[in-house]
Amino acid sequence: MIGEVPNTYVGQQFSSRWLAHEAGVHRPPQGGICGTKKNGAESIVVSGGYKDDEDYGDVIVYTGHGGQDSSKNQVSDQTLDDSGNAALVTSYLEGLPVRVLRGAHAGSPWAPAEGYRYDGLFRVTSYGSKLGIDGFLIWQFRLEAYEETPLPIRVQQEEFPTDEDSPAAPGNVPAGTESPGRVTTTVQRIVRSSAVKRQVKAWHDSRCQICDLRIEVPGGSYSEGAHMQALGSPHDGPDVTGNVLCLCPNCHVMLDAGAIVLRDDLTVIRGGIEAGSLRTHPKHNIDLNCVRQHRNRWRA
Amino acid sequence: MIGEVPNTYVGQQFSSRWLAHEAGVHRPPQGGICGTKKNGAESIVVSGGYKDDEDYGDVIVYTGHGGQDSSKNQVSDQTLDDSGNAALVTSYLEGLPVRVLRGAHAGSPWAPAEGYRYDGLFRVTSYGSKLGIDGFLIWQFRLEAYEETPLPIRVQQEEFPTDEDSPAAPGNVPAGTESPGRVTTTVQRIVRSSAVKRQVKAWHDSRCQICDLRIEVPGGSYSEGAHMQALGSPHDGPDVTGNVLCLCPNCHVMLDAGAIVLRDDLTVIRGGIEAGSLRTHPKHNIDLNCVRQHRNRWRA
Repeated sequence: MIGEVPNTYVGQQFSSRWLAHEAGVHRPPQGGICGTKKNGAESIVVSGGYKDDEDYGDVIVYTGHGGQDSSKNQVSDQTLDDSGNAALVTSYLEGLPVRVLRGAHAGSPWAPAEGYRYDGLFRVTSYGSKLGIDGFLIWQFRLEAYEETPLPIRVQQEEFPTDEDSPAAPGNVPAGTESPGRVTTTVQRIVRSSAVKRQVKAWHDSRCQICDLRIEVPGGSYSEGAHMQALGSPHDGPDVTGNVLCLCPNCHVMLDAGAIVLRDDLTVIRGGIEAGSLRTHPKHNIDLNCVRQHRNRWRA
Repeated sequence: MIGEVPNTYVGQQFSSRWLAHEAGVHRPPQGGICGTKKNGAESIVVSGGYKDDEDYGDVIVYTGHGGQDSSKNQVSDQTLDDSGNAALVTSYLEGLPVRVLRGAHAGSPWAPAEGYRYDGLFRVTSYGSKLGIDGFLIWQFRLEAYEETPLPIRVQQEEFPTDEDSPAAPGNVPAGTESPGRVTTTVQRIVRSSAVKRQVKAWHDSRCQICDLRIEVPGGSYSEGAHMQALGSPHDGPDVTGNVLCLCPNCHVMLDAGAIVLRDDLTVIRGGIEAGSLRTHPKHNIDLNCVRQHRNRWRA
């Protein structure tokens, strides 16, 4: 169960792990990470069990699983082979939400006074390894609460007499000194990872149907599900596998912006030139109406 | 001026275009789109001037500029060469916010009763062309209000006895019939387009510093600014050009997930194998500390 659990709410208190287990918020009675490499992490518990953890409320730096002795000292390196850590990598790669349960513990202003509290959905925004306080390799995952709306933030309100086209300094632009009229934005590209897209990606084993690339990264592989006929007005494409392709990010950008279109025989036209055929899969029936709707959108 | 204008607020009324002009919300006294291909669209006016427009409140299907006669009938094709239309393409490619001013007009429940109203920031989420009501080619841009928080949405609460690994139908999965435990999520990858990133992309003319690809799309080109040392805890990278690379989306994914690291001499290591050198630019001084911080994150 990825995402919100029915009949629970953000802020809900549980006096024990067992009750959180029964509610389905965090199912394992012991482990801190619930999930699998295949499906991603359902939930984590933040309860002070790892001394390298950091909790900023809407941002959590969560230490992966493994390598501890019974006194919670790191005594060996953590790896991404651990199924909990691999689950968090999958959550990152697939953009899946992770439920966060905080347990009472000393040293965090965000922990509940007692028992456990369900604190809502977070997403994994980065991860990496480092030497932990105890001198062994740990993996850490940055989680951010979904509640942070990605609003554009104006970073510079004052009017500097700077020519936008000729930055004052030829080298680095220090943060906070941008020219007026520029903003730190926000969401540039949103890729939704729905059940439909996950199905298509599974059929194609994350290999791009257009350029055949499979992006391999430590802990997994990465691909995107791309709607040919876009969802919503004015295109009103259906959210079905026949309208979705498994693509690498580059081919996805080109499909969305009309640099790639398909003929009815699934020939790929890239930049107006024939560029091979779409790779198909026996279970993946491409909806030709969606192919045409996308192509017509670009008058190709 | 991209983004919010100082001393204005969402919902602010203007009795005339001139007053909206003076406030800086929509600067041109006449045109519907304010902006340039280079910098993107600052603002648009939705005032019923194009019969193919659709307004759903948080979503607007906005018809591009051009091809009308004085009676507001389309009499020729619109093109992306029009500077207003090209500006909206840039807003899409760069993920830049667009101010929306709605003017009073018949037929839209979202229009103000009189005058003009500033309705906040929207982003361009897709675009494409079609034959308009009058039979000529028009370009249309889908804009979505930023206020829509990208929260995960559970699409299926009921428990169907479906094996997740064996979809019932071998072909399309109709919308709304996904297996339990799957969700329609949301933000999979967030790419912020800040002033720092735009500077780096300008130096490199949107060509990937790793694989040399420049993604050309109708109306522009696409690249991403990628922080080597990630922002925020636990990595705490600086938001300066020395920490940012101009990359294609594929190389960006690989950099972020540690499939690509750089040596101090800017040799690219991809999947553990030497893969050429990072392309540089005289004005782009790469911060070697950021290179090392990124590399150390992956123990490479």
